[in-house]
Amino acid sequence: MTITPSTPAGTLELLPAEQAIHDAMLDKIRRGFRRFGFPAIETPVFERADVLLTKTGGETERQVYFVQSAGSLEAGEPPDLALRFDLTVPLARYVAEHEHDLVFPFRRSQIQRVYRGERPQRGRYREFYQCDIDVIDRDELSLRHDAEVAAAAIAILEDLDIGSVTLRLNSRKLMRRLLEEVGVTAEEAQTEVLREIDKLEKKGVDAVRKSLLDSGMSPESVSRLIEWTTISASGVADIEAALASLPVRAEAEAAELAEVSRTMAALGVSEESFALDLSIARGLDYYTGTVYETRLDDHPELGSICSGGRYDDLAGQYTTTRLPGVGISIGFTRLFWQLREAGLLPQGTSAVPVSVALLSDADLEYSLGIADRLRRAGIATETQMTAARLGKQLKAADRRGCTLVLIAGESERDRNTVAVRDLARGEQVEVDLDNLVDHVTRRLAQEP
Amino acid sequence: MTITPSTPAGTLELLPAEQAIHDAMLDKIRRGFRRFGFPAIETPVFERADVLLTKTGGETERQVYFVQSAGSLEAGEPPDLALRFDLTVPLARYVAEHEHDLVFPFRRSQIQRVYRGERPQRGRYREFYQCDIDVIDRDELSLRHDAEVAAAAIAILEDLDIGSVTLRLNSRKLMRRLLEEVGVTAEEAQTEVLREIDKLEKKGVDAVRKSLLDSGMSPESVSRLIEWTTISASGVADIEAALASLPVRAEAEAAELAEVSRTMAALGVSEESFALDLSIARGLDYYTGTVYETRLDDHPELGSICSGGRYDDLAGQYTTTRLPGVGISIGFTRLFWQLREAGLLPQGTSAVPVSVALLSDADLEYSLGIADRLRRAGIATETQMTAARLGKQLKAADRRGCTLVLIAGESERDRNTVAVRDLARGEQVEVDLDNLVDHVTRRLAQEP
Repeated sequence: MTITPSTPAGTLELLPAEQAIHDAMLDKIRRGFRRFGFPAIETPVFERADVLLTKTGGETERQVYFVQSAGSLEAGEPPDLALRFDLTVPLARYVAEHEHDLVFPFRRSQIQRVYRGERPQRGRYREFYQCDIDVIDRDELSLRHDAEVAAAAIAILEDLDIGSVTLRLNSRKLMRRLLEEVGVTAEEAQTEVLREIDKLEKKGVDAVRKSLLDSGMSPESVSRLIEWTTISASGVADIEAALASLPVRAEAEAAELAEVSRTMAALGVSEESFALDLSIARGLDYYTGTVYETRLDDHPELGSICSGGRYDDLAGQYTTTRLPGVGISIGFTRLFWQLREAGLLPQGTSAVPVSVALLSDADLEYSLGIADRLRRAGIATETQMTAARLGKQLKAADRRGCTLVLIAGESERDRNTVAVRDLARGEQVEVDLDNLVDHVTRRLAQEP
Repeated sequence: MTITPSTPAGTLELLPAEQAIHDAMLDKIRRGFRRFGFPAIETPVFERADVLLTKTGGETERQVYFVQSAGSLEAGEPPDLALRFDLTVPLARYVAEHEHDLVFPFRRSQIQRVYRGERPQRGRYREFYQCDIDVIDRDELSLRHDAEVAAAAIAILEDLDIGSVTLRLNSRKLMRRLLEEVGVTAEEAQTEVLREIDKLEKKGVDAVRKSLLDSGMSPESVSRLIEWTTISASGVADIEAALASLPVRAEAEAAELAEVSRTMAALGVSEESFALDLSIARGLDYYTGTVYETRLDDHPELGSICSGGRYDDLAGQYTTTRLPGVGISIGFTRLFWQLREAGLLPQGTSAVPVSVALLSDADLEYSLGIADRLRRAGIATETQMTAARLGKQLKAADRRGCTLVLIAGESERDRNTVAVRDLARGEQVEVDLDNLVDHVTRRLAQEP
């Protein structure tokens, strides 16, 4: 009796060729984070349930997965562990637990999968990678870090070779001042309005206008507010000018956003890569200052592929130390899926670019020696271990995504050479064994 | 009210400096696997419980962690998911599920964490990394792959810079022939004896001899068997000679082991790095042919750090296709912990080797420009975003594990230079901005 093997619903499992593209992209993100000074950490996939679920209610907590050992299940105990549903709560726990061993400001990157029991649907995963960076300090965190995380995110997304991006900036603090200006002064009422603004794109301006009027705002207040949300500008000078046009009440917050923009430029970010956009609100009340969203310029329909913001206190549930921070996150599994659906995955990544064929058992030692040379030069190389028809081997290597097949039969052995077949171009050249590593290195570098 | 933040029992969580060493080692393993032609795959952390737990009973299955969503728990349903407890069952499921999309022989590497509800104790983890490679074929798998996985494992362990290793080879099939030779013919009785042999090192030869005698084997049989288990040889010629000394009944199996040895040498493995050792039995009945164990030559007390073997059929529970395979696995988290305990972790890895100091706000733009130059050259660089006393900044950079601190105050700006302070050596030199990338690249390459 056999069981039908299948992956659980809501997980993305890849065949090796796509996994190679997936991993190469993640690796670029990983190296990019590190390049910008964000060392990696990892946390366990599960946390103690009482530690993870300190905040009651909330959509995310209803989606949590609980974990318990076979023994605990048999004993009828409630689960005492739960899978992380984001990387922020584990970061809070990490910083609070290791506070005295960390150096502040504390930068960290984290690339791990998180788990949410969402209703499975196309492009929504129950297991997905998040790629996060955050900077945390004690008591106060310099505004300059708001520019730093944004600069890192832009540079890294540009590394991915998926087209140009624009990161859009706003500040929830600024928006609250503007709401005060039009008479919405209670914090909770402001929060409600910010949630509405966050829906501008999805619901459209007319629906949001109606909701705001229904909530009791005056027509004039709604008009002024909606007018502000149309403000967008790119380039430091234009951003500064746009911010200068805002009411005096928001002057300090506008000046902060201008400083973030200037610091991004000083960090080497091209001025085309970021913009001010007062329609960005981010639904999460967690954010208290700068907020970010990022889109692919040629594919705005994919929505924000990288978002984040500034928060006042990371870990109030675990420590009395005030830990302000700012962070940004790439929802990688969803991005990968979207790029794949849209046919935009970066090409040219092969898990194992070189295959050494085997025409007869007499060639085995020579063929393995060829593979050994290439591997010692760091070139990923597979070897065919069973002699077979060349056509069959070429086809198998092609299906595995190899770029070059190296062929050495009796005549090549006699001449101390190897025939190098380029599968994509259908070309074949004979190369001296001593030149092989150079030749293969050059051929692989020419690949698209 | 705050909750005391703590990691769940049985998990290894690292501070950034050790995480950098951990990740650099894993990265070497990852690249090594790929270099040997084993493309990476990933599977979900959980599997459907009915798919994962097809084999009843067994120590491992008693240690499984079950997973269920908050909704499912509330509804009082039994868990329908479970965390993977190894990478072999997920591989079996993967190969059976994707059989028609894979090219055989199918090589894969997989580096992921697995979960076992073990009693926590020093060096035993409930969450730990395994690094596996396997080759699977349909119906028949060439014996040459038994050499291939061993060759890959040795090369990769040598990359790790943790000292020389010896991989020890045996064959459970060979041992069964030897048991037949001394009258133990029933398969189950053979399995029992192989389990005893596996305990030779832990219990000592006298205890094993006693157990075997108690099980009813004749004194002469036990003596001959124990004599065989003392056979060990290194170098292909000596291995062949040792195998030739075995009874004729085991001739075919001995010839196979000799061929594995010769093929390893042809794959470029140094003859000092592997040995025949007839005391290796591996407890797992799963293995049916070649078995491997690997030790650090200077630290045999750490036990086997990399083990595996050949099996007859990977996925009989999921498919009627016979899928013979051979694989080898590094229990990485345990290895990392052991090396750390023994003070043997490879040194010289810094998550972020360069820190740019900030002496006054007037230097900010210049300092960020320095960081931008280095990052564009791929050098991981952090920047101090808040001006502070240099001594404090040097200390913070040192605590973060940086190697070089770059300092540019007013005078350096005027001269278009940077002061490069080497923290380990306590040296400082002034470098022209245009030479900075070259200088830093060279300094970092000189690091131990």
